[in-house]
Amino acid sequence: MCIFSTFKISSSSIGHNLFYRIALRRTHAPFSKPSMVATTEESLRRDFAAKQASVEAQGNAVRALKATGAAKPEVDAAIEALNRLKIEKAAVEKELQSVISRDSGDGSVSREAFRQAVLNTLERRLFYIPSFKIYRGVAGLYDFGPPGCAVKSNVLAFWRQHFVLEENMLEVDCPCVTPEVVLKASGHVDKFTDLMVKDEKTGTCYRADHLLKDFCNEKLQKDLSISAEKAAELRHVLAVLDDLSAEELGAKIKEYGITAPDTKNPLSDPYPFNLMFQTSIGPSGLLPGYMRPETAQGIFVNFKDLYYYNGNKLPFAAAQIGQAFRNEISPRQGLLRVREFTLAEIEHFVDPEDKSHPKYPEVANLEFLMFPREEQMSGQSAKIICLGEAVSKGIVNNETLGYFIGRVYLFLTHLGIDKSRLRFRQHLANEMAHYAADCWDAEIESSYGWIECVGIADRSAYDLRAHTDKSGVPLVAAEKFSEPREVEKLVIAPVKKELGLAFKGNQKNVVEALEAMKEQEALEMKAALESKGEVEFQVCTLGKNVIIKKNMVSISKEKKKEHQRVFTPSVIEPSFGIGRIIYCLYEHSFYTRPSKAGDELLNVFRFPPLVAPIKCTVFPLVQNQQYEEVAKEISKSLTVAGISHKIDITGTSIGKRYARTDELGVPFAITVDSTSSVTIRERDSKDQIRVNVDEAASVVKAVTDGLKSWEDVWSNYPHHSAESTDD
Amino acid sequence: MCIFSTFKISSSSIGHNLFYRIALRRTHAPFSKPSMVATTEESLRRDFAAKQASVEAQGNAVRALKATGAAKPEVDAAIEALNRLKIEKAAVEKELQSVISRDSGDGSVSREAFRQAVLNTLERRLFYIPSFKIYRGVAGLYDFGPPGCAVKSNVLAFWRQHFVLEENMLEVDCPCVTPEVVLKASGHVDKFTDLMVKDEKTGTCYRADHLLKDFCNEKLQKDLSISAEKAAELRHVLAVLDDLSAEELGAKIKEYGITAPDTKNPLSDPYPFNLMFQTSIGPSGLLPGYMRPETAQGIFVNFKDLYYYNGNKLPFAAAQIGQAFRNEISPRQGLLRVREFTLAEIEHFVDPEDKSHPKYPEVANLEFLMFPREEQMSGQSAKIICLGEAVSKGIVNNETLGYFIGRVYLFLTHLGIDKSRLRFRQHLANEMAHYAADCWDAEIESSYGWIECVGIADRSAYDLRAHTDKSGVPLVAAEKFSEPREVEKLVIAPVKKELGLAFKGNQKNVVEALEAMKEQEALEMKAALESKGEVEFQVCTLGKNVIIKKNMVSISKEKKKEHQRVFTPSVIEPSFGIGRIIYCLYEHSFYTRPSKAGDELLNVFRFPPLVAPIKCTVFPLVQNQQYEEVAKEISKSLTVAGISHKIDITGTSIGKRYARTDELGVPFAITVDSTSSVTIRERDSKDQIRVNVDEAASVVKAVTDGLKSWEDVWSNYPHHSAESTDD
Repeated sequence: MCIFSTFKISSSSIGHNLFYRIALRRTHAPFSKPSMVATTEESLRRDFAAKQASVEAQGNAVRALKATGAAKPEVDAAIEALNRLKIEKAAVEKELQSVISRDSGDGSVSREAFRQAVLNTLERRLFYIPSFKIYRGVAGLYDFGPPGCAVKSNVLAFWRQHFVLEENMLEVDCPCVTPEVVLKASGHVDKFTDLMVKDEKTGTCYRADHLLKDFCNEKLQKDLSISAEKAAELRHVLAVLDDLSAEELGAKIKEYGITAPDTKNPLSDPYPFNLMFQTSIGPSGLLPGYMRPETAQGIFVNFKDLYYYNGNKLPFAAAQIGQAFRNEISPRQGLLRVREFTLAEIEHFVDPEDKSHPKYPEVANLEFLMFPREEQMSGQSAKIICLGEAVSKGIVNNETLGYFIGRVYLFLTHLGIDKSRLRFRQHLANEMAHYAADCWDAEIESSYGWIECVGIADRSAYDLRAHTDKSGVPLVAAEKFSEPREVEKLVIAPVKKELGLAFKGNQKNVVEALEAMKEQEALEMKAALESKGEVEFQVCTLGKNVIIKKNMVSISKEKKKEHQRVFTPSVIEPSFGIGRIIYCLYEHSFYTRPSKAGDELLNVFRFPPLVAPIKCTVFPLVQNQQYEEVAKEISKSLTVAGISHKIDITGTSIGKRYARTDELGVPFAITVDSTSSVTIRERDSKDQIRVNVDEAASVVKAVTDGLKSWEDVWSNYPHHSAESTDD
Repeated sequence: MCIFSTFKISSSSIGHNLFYRIALRRTHAPFSKPSMVATTEESLRRDFAAKQASVEAQGNAVRALKATGAAKPEVDAAIEALNRLKIEKAAVEKELQSVISRDSGDGSVSREAFRQAVLNTLERRLFYIPSFKIYRGVAGLYDFGPPGCAVKSNVLAFWRQHFVLEENMLEVDCPCVTPEVVLKASGHVDKFTDLMVKDEKTGTCYRADHLLKDFCNEKLQKDLSISAEKAAELRHVLAVLDDLSAEELGAKIKEYGITAPDTKNPLSDPYPFNLMFQTSIGPSGLLPGYMRPETAQGIFVNFKDLYYYNGNKLPFAAAQIGQAFRNEISPRQGLLRVREFTLAEIEHFVDPEDKSHPKYPEVANLEFLMFPREEQMSGQSAKIICLGEAVSKGIVNNETLGYFIGRVYLFLTHLGIDKSRLRFRQHLANEMAHYAADCWDAEIESSYGWIECVGIADRSAYDLRAHTDKSGVPLVAAEKFSEPREVEKLVIAPVKKELGLAFKGNQKNVVEALEAMKEQEALEMKAALESKGEVEFQVCTLGKNVIIKKNMVSISKEKKKEHQRVFTPSVIEPSFGIGRIIYCLYEHSFYTRPSKAGDELLNVFRFPPLVAPIKCTVFPLVQNQQYEEVAKEISKSLTVAGISHKIDITGTSIGKRYARTDELGVPFAITVDSTSSVTIRERDSKDQIRVNVDEAASVVKAVTDGLKSWEDVWSNYPHHSAESTDD
C-alpha cells in the first residue's frame, strides 16, 4: 500500500542524505517559530518605521520654527513633543530588538555563554578535540579523547543492548570503501550534492545556501530600518531555502549583492559539489570508489543473504554501526556537522501489506512531545501526544513506524536526554522523498536550536528496488500460501511463426511490445481482433505502428493456482547520528554549582552511570601507605566486577579531587579514610554513606548496573556527614 | 638507551607497515623449516639425479645388448638390473616428493580440505561474505554477517576489558581521513609501497614479489628434475625476497622468464605503488588526504594532550580501535589480506632510561612457545621458554616489552587460540626498522602457515621525533628532579658582529653551522683557535669551507643547574590485526563429528562463551503453546541478564536444531520439555542437566560469564539422559 511505482529521486530527498543536511536548516525554519511571532515582529517593524518618520517630521518642524524665529514657548512645546516621540521610538526599538533576538535561535547571549562553558570543559578534559591539532587541524574532523571515547562506547553498547539484542536484529559490519556501482544505484553519485559558490579571485569555496541564510539572518537581526515587507521577504527566503534551485539561489545572491565573506570579492554562480570522498580501488586506477556516506547500502545489497539467514521470513531487521563520510564544503557547529562520523542504522524489512508490530503495545501508552505536519503548517508548536493515539488517528503512518518512534524515545531518555527538550517532528511533504510513506525526526534542543539526531523513515520499497534494477538480482521476499490460491491471470501468447512471416527482422520488437501490454490495452486488442480481425499497434522500439492480425497473437484470461506471493519488502529505517546525540547529551547533562567557598563555579556532568566515562573513583583521603593498600584492593575488586574506575593517590585536597571528577561526570567516589570502612559519595546530591571495605565494590556495581538506585543504598547504609571534605 | 639519532627509514621497515606485509611471506621463509630439511631435500635431489642417470645408462646398455644380438641370459640380467634401478629411482622420487610437500607449508591436501570445510561453513552461515556480492564483489573487501559481527564485537569487548580497563589506558577515537602532512611525517607517503609489475598488453597489475615467489615455489614443488644447485638457488631467492630491490626483482623476473600468469604476456619492470587510498579533503581539491593505513598516528599526534591528561606522568598507554585501509595490489588469502580491516593498537609511552613495568611479575612465570632470533638463524625450531628467563637473559629487550608479550599470550589463549599453535617470533635484524629496539610477532598457525596476528615492537623514540620535526611542536616528556642537579654544558656563542663583517649575507649560514656543532667538534675548534688563532670550518649549507677566527666565536663549558630532564619517550607498540586473529580462531575452533545416524559429518565451532556469537538457544521440544510460553519467559530473563540468545520454535527435530546451532558455536541450549523444568545441553560434551524453569537463565549466565564452569553445574544438577534427543 505504501509502494510508489516511480523511481525518480530528487536532489535533496534521498532519505539518507536528509539526515545530516536538512536538520540544521530547520533550526531557522519558519515552523519552529509560531507564526504569531512573525506577526508581532511585522507590526513592530511597521510601528518602528512610523515612529522614525514622526521623529524626523517633528525634528524638521522644530528646525523650521527655530529658523523662522518663532516664540520660545512654541519652540519649547515642539521640542517637548519631539522628545516624547523619541522616547516612544526608543521603546518600540527596544521591543523589536528583543523580539528579534529572542527569535533568532542561536542569537541569545546566555545560550552562547552556556555553550562556551560546555565546550571549554569538553575540550579541556579531552572529551573531544580537533584532530591533527599539532598540524593546525582540518575543519570537520575531531578526535574523541579518553572520556569522550568511553562515553561513545557506552552509548553504542547500550544501543546494541536496546535495539540489536532486544529485537534479535541481524547485525552486519561492511567496509567503508564502496565501489561506484553501489552508490550509482542508490542515487548518491548523481544526487548527493550541495550547491557551492567560489570566490572568483581566491577560489575559496562556500555553501551557497549558507551565504544566503547568513545574509538574511544578519539583515533581520541587525538592520531595524528594513521595511516590514522586506523583512517578510527575507523570512520567506529562509523558509524556502531548501527548495531553491541553483539558478534561483544564484539569482538571489546577485539580487542581494552578496560577496565572499572574507574578501568581498564577487562570487561564481552556484554549482553542485558531490559530498562523497572519492578514491580509487586497486592499482589500475580503473575502479572508482567512494567512502560510504551512510551505512545503509551495505545492508540493502546483502538483503538476499540476510533474508535467507532469517529463515526466509519477514519481518526482520538488520543493523549496522560504523563510520560514514561526507566531504562537507565548509563544516561548522563543531560535532554537529563533521566530515566523518559514526552512524548506527537499522533497516527493518516488512511486508508492505502488513506493517503491524507484535511489540507495539509495549510502547503505545508512551506520551511525549510530537510535532505533526499539520501543527507545523498551521504555526502551532509541538505538543504532548500519546503515541498510540497518533498511530490510531493515522498521524503516524503505521504501527512499526510508531513502535520505533517509541523505542527511540526510550533510548534517548534513558541516556539522559531531557524529555522536555526532545520532540518528534514529522517531515513536511516538501522535505520527504516522494517514495517515502512517512518520516519523523527525533530532534533535540541544544544551544544551536533543535537538532535532528535520529531519522525514522518508512522508505517503502525504494532501496531494494533500486539495487534490484541495477544488479539484476531480485531482492524480493515471498509469502507462501498455506494452500494454493486461484487467481485470474492475463496470458498474452504471440504466435511467433506468423509474426516472423509478417515482420521478418522486426519480429523480436513486435513480440516484446505485445508481451509488455498492460491488462487494459490487451483486453481492448482482444476485443478489436475479435470484432475487426486486425488492429493497428504501436511498437515504440521500432518507432512506428504495425498491423496485428487475429492469427498473430492469442490473448486470454486464465485461472491459475499460485503457491506464493512475491513482493519487494518495505523498509523502515531508524538512523542514529551518534556524535550528535552525544553532543546534545553533553549539553543536557552540564551544569555548574558554586564551590564550598563560593569563590568559583564548578562544572558537573550529570551523566547516568550507563553513560558515565568512568563509573567510580577511589581516593585515599591522605597519602598513607595503609590507605593506598586499601584503595588498591578496592580497585582490584572493581576491575573484577568490570567497573571502569580510576585511583587518584595525589595529595590534592579531597574537595579538588571531587571537583575534577564531577567535571568528568563520574557518578560515585569511594574515599578511603580508614582501613575497615570507606565513604561512597554520589555526585549530584553530594550525599555520602559509610560502607565496609569489602562491600564497596559490590555497592558501586549495584548502583552502576541499575540493580539498585542511590535512594536504595542511601536508606540502607549509615550516612556520613563530613561537610568539610567536599571542598 | 634505545634511541637512534638517525631518522632514515627504509621501504620495508616502517614498523607498522611490516604488520600486514611481512607476515605471509614468512610462511615460506627458510627459518620456519629447520635447515636439516633443506639438507635432506638437497641430498635426495642429488640421489634422484644420480638414479635417473643410472636408469638412463642401464637402458642404453640394454638397448645396445639387444642391438648387438647378445645372448638371452645376458640381456635378461641387464633388464633385471634396469628394473632394480627403476624401483630404486621410484623410491627416491617418492621420498623426495613427500619431503617437498611436507615442507611446502600450504601444499598439503588435508590442510586444503580442512580449510575448505571451514570456509564453506563460515560463508554459508554468514560469518563473513564477500562485500557487494550482487555486484560481483571487490577483491579484498568482506562483510561480517550476524555471527561474525557478534564474534568481532565480543573479541573487541574482551580486548577493551583485558587491555584498556585493566591497565587504565587512555582510549582515543580518531578519524580515518588523514591529511597528507601527517602521513608525510610518518614516512607513509614516501615509503608505504609494494613493488608492482604490469602485463604490458592488458595493463593488469601484479605484485612483483608474489610472481617471483609463486614461480620459485612451483618449481621447487613440481619440478623434480631441477638440480640440487638450482633448488638451493630458488630457496635462497625465497629467503631474501623481502630484501630485493626493484632492480634485483626485475632482473630475477627476466632471468627466469616469468610472464603474466593469465595471458603469458611480457611484464613491465617493477615499480613502487603506494598502498594508501588517496582522496581529497574539502571542496577546493587542494588538500590531499589518505585513508589511514594504521591507527597509531592518531595517538602520536595527540601525545602532548594525552601526557597532560595523564598528569604529565610516564609511563602511560593510549589505545585505539578502528578501521585501517590498504589498497593491496592483488589481495588473496581471504580475511588474512584485505583492503579494509580493524586494528586495535596500543602505544605505551615510557622513559627510555626505565623500561621496567610494575605488573611484570604477574606474567614472568608464563611459559610458551618462543622463537628467538638466534634459534631462527641456526635453523632450530620454536621452543617453550619461560618469559621471565627470556627477559632476564636479554633475549627480550626489556620488562615492558616482556609484559606485553605475556599479556598478548593471555589474551589470545583466553579467546580460544590453541597454545601449541601460537608462537612469539622475534624479528631478524633485516626485518626490523633500524630504530626499533626489539620486535616480536605473535604468530598463529593456520592452514595458510604461521600468520602474524599481533606485532609487539619497541619503536624507541622514532614516531614522536618524526612528528616533532615535521610539526615543530615538541612531543617530549620531562622528569622533574627532586632537587636541581648541576650539569656541565657546552656553550657555543657566535659573535654575530664579527661574523657579519666577515661573511656578509652568508652570516646566518655560518652562525647556524657553528651552533650545530657536536661537543667533540666544538672542543677541537676551541683548542685550534686557542693555539692557531684561526681554523678552517666546513659550512654544508654554503657548500664550502670558511675561515673562523678567534674573535668570531666563544666556546666554553659552563656549569648549570637543571631542574628537570627533558626527553622524547620511547614507545612500545602492541598492534592487533583483529580480522586475522578472528580467522585463526575460526580454524582453531572448528571440528566435525559424525551425526548420531553416522550418515554425515556435523560441523562444530568450540568457541568459549566469551567469544560465541550467541550464548544460548531456547527450543520448545515440540510445537505447543505452553512450551512456547515457557520459552518466551526464559528468553525475557536472558534478555534482562544481557545474554544474547535465540528462540527456535520451528517444528524441526531437536537434533537438527542442535546441529544448526553447534555450527554457529552456540555453547548452551535450553530445551523446554515441561512447564516446570528444562534441560540445558552443553555443546561439546553434549551433556545435559535438568534445571527449574526459573533458574535456567541464571545458570546460563553463570557459565557464560565464567563465574562457574560447566563441570561445576554438571556436579550440582541432576543429569538428563535423553539419548534420543540429540539427533
